[in-house]
Amino acid sequence: MNGNAKVLSNHELQSQAPSYLETIFSLANGHFGIRGSNPLQESSTGGTVVNGFYEISPIHYGEAAFGYAKNNQTIVNLPDFYALEIFDENEDRFVAKLDEKSLDMQTGMLTSNYILTNSEQQKIKLVVKSVLSQNKDSFVGLQYKIQSLDYQGKLLIKKHLQPVKNATENNDPRKSRVVQTLTYQRETINNSCEILKIATKFSHLHLDLGLCSKISLEQNIVLKESFEFECIGIVGEIDQTLNLDKIPTFQDILADSQDFWDKFWHNSEVIISGNDELNQALHYNIFQLMSSSGRDGKTNIAAKGLSGTGYEGHYFWDTEMYMAPFFDFTNPQIARNLIKYRYSILPESKKRAKTLGVDQGVLFAWRTINGQEASAYYPAGTAQYHIDADVAFGVYRYLSATDDWQFIEDYGLKIVLETARFWRGFGSYTEMNGRKKFCFYDVTGPDEYTAIVDNNYYTNRMAKFNLNFAVKLIEKFPQKAQSLGVTSKEINDLKQTAQAIYLPYDKKLGINQQDDSSFKKPVWPFEKTPKENYPLLLHYHPLTIYRYQVNKQADTILADFLFNDISQAQLKREYDYYEKITTHDSSLSRSIFSAMAARIGLKQKAYDYFIDTVRTDLTDLQGNSADGLHVANLGGSWLTVVFGFCGVEVKNGTLFLHNNLPKAWNKLSIRLKFKGRLLKMTYSPDKIEVDLLDGQPIKLFIDGTSQMIV
Amino acid sequence: MNGNAKVLSNHELQSQAPSYLETIFSLANGHFGIRGSNPLQESSTGGTVVNGFYEISPIHYGEAAFGYAKNNQTIVNLPDFYALEIFDENEDRFVAKLDEKSLDMQTGMLTSNYILTNSEQQKIKLVVKSVLSQNKDSFVGLQYKIQSLDYQGKLLIKKHLQPVKNATENNDPRKSRVVQTLTYQRETINNSCEILKIATKFSHLHLDLGLCSKISLEQNIVLKESFEFECIGIVGEIDQTLNLDKIPTFQDILADSQDFWDKFWHNSEVIISGNDELNQALHYNIFQLMSSSGRDGKTNIAAKGLSGTGYEGHYFWDTEMYMAPFFDFTNPQIARNLIKYRYSILPESKKRAKTLGVDQGVLFAWRTINGQEASAYYPAGTAQYHIDADVAFGVYRYLSATDDWQFIEDYGLKIVLETARFWRGFGSYTEMNGRKKFCFYDVTGPDEYTAIVDNNYYTNRMAKFNLNFAVKLIEKFPQKAQSLGVTSKEINDLKQTAQAIYLPYDKKLGINQQDDSSFKKPVWPFEKTPKENYPLLLHYHPLTIYRYQVNKQADTILADFLFNDISQAQLKREYDYYEKITTHDSSLSRSIFSAMAARIGLKQKAYDYFIDTVRTDLTDLQGNSADGLHVANLGGSWLTVVFGFCGVEVKNGTLFLHNNLPKAWNKLSIRLKFKGRLLKMTYSPDKIEVDLLDGQPIKLFIDGTSQMIV
Repeated sequence: MNGNAKVLSNHELQSQAPSYLETIFSLANGHFGIRGSNPLQESSTGGTVVNGFYEISPIHYGEAAFGYAKNNQTIVNLPDFYALEIFDENEDRFVAKLDEKSLDMQTGMLTSNYILTNSEQQKIKLVVKSVLSQNKDSFVGLQYKIQSLDYQGKLLIKKHLQPVKNATENNDPRKSRVVQTLTYQRETINNSCEILKIATKFSHLHLDLGLCSKISLEQNIVLKESFEFECIGIVGEIDQTLNLDKIPTFQDILADSQDFWDKFWHNSEVIISGNDELNQALHYNIFQLMSSSGRDGKTNIAAKGLSGTGYEGHYFWDTEMYMAPFFDFTNPQIARNLIKYRYSILPESKKRAKTLGVDQGVLFAWRTINGQEASAYYPAGTAQYHIDADVAFGVYRYLSATDDWQFIEDYGLKIVLETARFWRGFGSYTEMNGRKKFCFYDVTGPDEYTAIVDNNYYTNRMAKFNLNFAVKLIEKFPQKAQSLGVTSKEINDLKQTAQAIYLPYDKKLGINQQDDSSFKKPVWPFEKTPKENYPLLLHYHPLTIYRYQVNKQADTILADFLFNDISQAQLKREYDYYEKITTHDSSLSRSIFSAMAARIGLKQKAYDYFIDTVRTDLTDLQGNSADGLHVANLGGSWLTVVFGFCGVEVKNGTLFLHNNLPKAWNKLSIRLKFKGRLLKMTYSPDKIEVDLLDGQPIKLFIDGTSQMIV
Repeated sequence: MNGNAKVLSNHELQSQAPSYLETIFSLANGHFGIRGSNPLQESSTGGTVVNGFYEISPIHYGEAAFGYAKNNQTIVNLPDFYALEIFDENEDRFVAKLDEKSLDMQTGMLTSNYILTNSEQQKIKLVVKSVLSQNKDSFVGLQYKIQSLDYQGKLLIKKHLQPVKNATENNDPRKSRVVQTLTYQRETINNSCEILKIATKFSHLHLDLGLCSKISLEQNIVLKESFEFECIGIVGEIDQTLNLDKIPTFQDILADSQDFWDKFWHNSEVIISGNDELNQALHYNIFQLMSSSGRDGKTNIAAKGLSGTGYEGHYFWDTEMYMAPFFDFTNPQIARNLIKYRYSILPESKKRAKTLGVDQGVLFAWRTINGQEASAYYPAGTAQYHIDADVAFGVYRYLSATDDWQFIEDYGLKIVLETARFWRGFGSYTEMNGRKKFCFYDVTGPDEYTAIVDNNYYTNRMAKFNLNFAVKLIEKFPQKAQSLGVTSKEINDLKQTAQAIYLPYDKKLGINQQDDSSFKKPVWPFEKTPKENYPLLLHYHPLTIYRYQVNKQADTILADFLFNDISQAQLKREYDYYEKITTHDSSLSRSIFSAMAARIGLKQKAYDYFIDTVRTDLTDLQGNSADGLHVANLGGSWLTVVFGFCGVEVKNGTLFLHNNLPKAWNKLSIRLKFKGRLLKMTYSPDKIEVDLLDGQPIKLFIDGTSQMIV
């Protein structure tokens, strides 16, 4: 590699498949993303994705039933801002071959070099520099430089916003369906600007894209040595009209981007000393995580961010469990806005709870953009009720990191209360050994290789947390709680229910039990399963997978990761048991296993998992990065570093650090915001040093010893 | 009612909705069925259904997964043989209003009277007599008689085979989808015959329909008093070419039908004395059950028989559990052919087992025509693995009734062996209280309001039976078994597995437990459920239904019904427990509850359930008889009478009778074939009399006392 952790070149990647490179070199700013396509090569997968701009279509079921999700919500692939046509004097079109792409994460600028060839094999060079505005999120700056190699003479340059030619329909549930119901209306201004007004037919959304070029949109030039021009792409707000006043220059945009990323790295720099590749990968991951996140309180973080249309641009529990922690501890403003999005979909979630037969509280959609459930397979969708508690946990973690009680009163309390109410209405008491335990039947936990089970430990543990946290917030804000209808009876009910929630535990094994039936089932015949049969979901019927003990991802272990409330001995037993039955077929798995291995001292295991985690997309580990980045895993790799190797923990409002540094590294430094301070922690094999970069002195615990950081 | 149990008039029915009458007055002969439509009123629901003639289309899933059923198989609605056009001298078309329909179940003939009116309100009367050949199953005889009422003069009569205009698409999973991919080719012969060659596009089947009229297909006449003509409809065999040699006359067909039904009633007459309505309904039910059944070994009995396209013409477990018993004990030839159909789909079922991750044995499709799985919702489809044991049980019951060991060796053994093998490969050992028990995880029992559970009692009990029965047959036919690959090791394995199968039992309640988790779940809030919210499946999400104790239909009780192997005391407890949580939202439920109530002496309950059961279609109890008859329930009502009220049981090859006669009846007589004998049993309040109508003397037990019938 190049030695600079903040620069990534395509030559450092094994795959050079165009659609894969489009993903890896996508740029985004939370509002929109542009895929790193070849400007002269029409691509069905290149283009622009706008956060929250989706079309709906009816979901078709072989056999439908009451309460099923009705509509797909599908993020749409919009025109590619890179696209350009260049013709020679014979009106022959040049084709382009990629020479190099280089992403500078310090400035946010992507530089792409192409060799262009006409049919007579004459060549010119094209250098495209691209950068997105970040503080004001509507602009993409594009700078095209054409240099003669062995072609000189007339060139016609055409630059328009063209609808992306649709990809063919496919059956991979992880890919997006094809949207054919957009309408486009074009407006040209002075030959140098155009606006493309785009409307969806069924979701009734519209969006304006703009393009302003320093030359005419169709311009004849005579190329001698080189020719340079710039274009500015503009992405409007959904349902708002674009105006082309105050278009910045390329330099303006670059300066804005540079300023933004400077601050970003200042607040969240993470440096691994000892392995340049991993160091670069980690930088890439948090750069893309930041790029992916909606920042306006109306949008969230899609499973693929803004790097592609995979998973249809839907928001999942991934946000709260894998992505939001990074923002909680580095950029609370964004963390707040992610929570505000959940707050905005409370009304839809209330309806959903009713549809699922629960008259109180809310049930968040498993996958959604507009708040309505869009999961067409309820056993691994709606049945993952734990999303309610995951969202509540997100509020809790934001509070732990920020102490921002005002936000909790304004937004958090209602979310936590309404989710707690759902659990109360959803669960029921069952007598066990003479005691009444509160149970949840027919649920699916995080592990999607086990579905529709009773008393999933993770779900029950999270629900218990959710209820207790609701009580805590109600007691903190009694008046606000009263305005939300809370009575003293309800407080008692919540407390009693939380107390009574059943947590399955296997005495013989001495570990928490994934669900009521999990340990009875036979273990998956791993020894008979050829390598090419992974991921299992592509090779076995769900019923086959469900009837075995086999996990797609961390489930019980994820609860351990979040709560850290069991003994080290039990934790080791649990880790050992569940690791053996986990395939990590989900990209949400390895990061958690890595962090947990680090915490229990399995240094090599922790490190091995981390290598896979941190480079999931850069090595195309899952084979489908072309559809978009695995954004939860981008966040997951940061989780591993911070909550695994750095042993960061907040207990009763105090920060604890534990040194779990991998042997291969001689130093690791991270920056975190904590309750208004900016801290820099530097881990070396034998010590942890903490610097206060901003804010008031604070007491924290380093490897068990209290220390005041000034 | 009219007092004749074998005649049914529309005036005895409450609903006069045309599509409902089409169902009730449908005629069929196992090969095809014609719905009782108004000949002059074009109907999208009238027409002809041919057993096993289906089109395929891809099943669309919101989220697809490995091993899902790929294609719909949809029985197609073919031209209506009744259809006729009559024009007056002004070329004005007559419309028809039904006066009366009367079905004679002694002869199989339907007589329909219509009043025809032209636009000048002039009237003629039309009487249509229709009858299907039964012994040779290709013909429908139609006799049209036109009588002047106040119209005389020219008439133009047009009679053609016209494709049915498609109904609109709908979302009710119980209805059929619309097939739009048929092609038709017409051939006219001498103006009086035509052949319509029909081909499906995707299932690659073809079928010829023929029509021969005694007059021209378009005939001008002058009506004075009356005019009569007959037409013969011909339904070819699937994939065979029709020839129009040897077309019978209407009288020939009527004679054939009469002969067939004479024999039918001779062998299976059931007479209830004491309630004419129920007596008529029971006659209707077995008449239609007989009409519905495929008789050729290549076809089976669809859920709606040949009376409509509901459930797409699919064969389910209904055959073995609800319909076949009637044939086992009255018409073994047909019972044999129903089993031969299962034998014919063994190869497809072997593939299906592999797809479900089981390398040995076969798994029958939950719903199918061609043997391939067509259920698009696996939790209430493929997960109902019990169908395998149901089919094996069907073989067992056929054997019990007939002693036909040769057929068992030729066909039955392989079916029973291959299903037993499936159970062995599908289940697994789990340690319980120090003993290894054989368990089945993630299955759905008969009750579709409980899905994806562990150790469903019915499933486990049936699997145990299946394995034991396989061992019995292997030991009876060692050579044949060897030729099917059975080794002594396999015999031992089968025995051990059968022995080890776990049967969930609740000690506290003293009853068999529906599944591992059923009793932990809260009971459905019946008191809060308004009447209009039944059937629950149309008003609650599956997840809502699944997380409560609530049954759509008999489940554990069905096992009790089949095996009769628990004490009366436990049976009463079980009946009491499960009845309270059963909604009978399935038409497969009440017949079993009725029979069980009869057996345990709950006479009034038994009778009340029976009234609903036996008249399900005649009262349109479920509100959807327009889509076709509930054929399983037709058989179910016979089950109730024979195995409930008449207490018929075969134990160790001997017939036992118990008098459970309802109080309201003074007499009940049934006819059964048993091991080559034809027996007539007459139940009165204080005794059972048995007459041997045909065959050798036989010993049987009447209310516990052994008696030789000579």
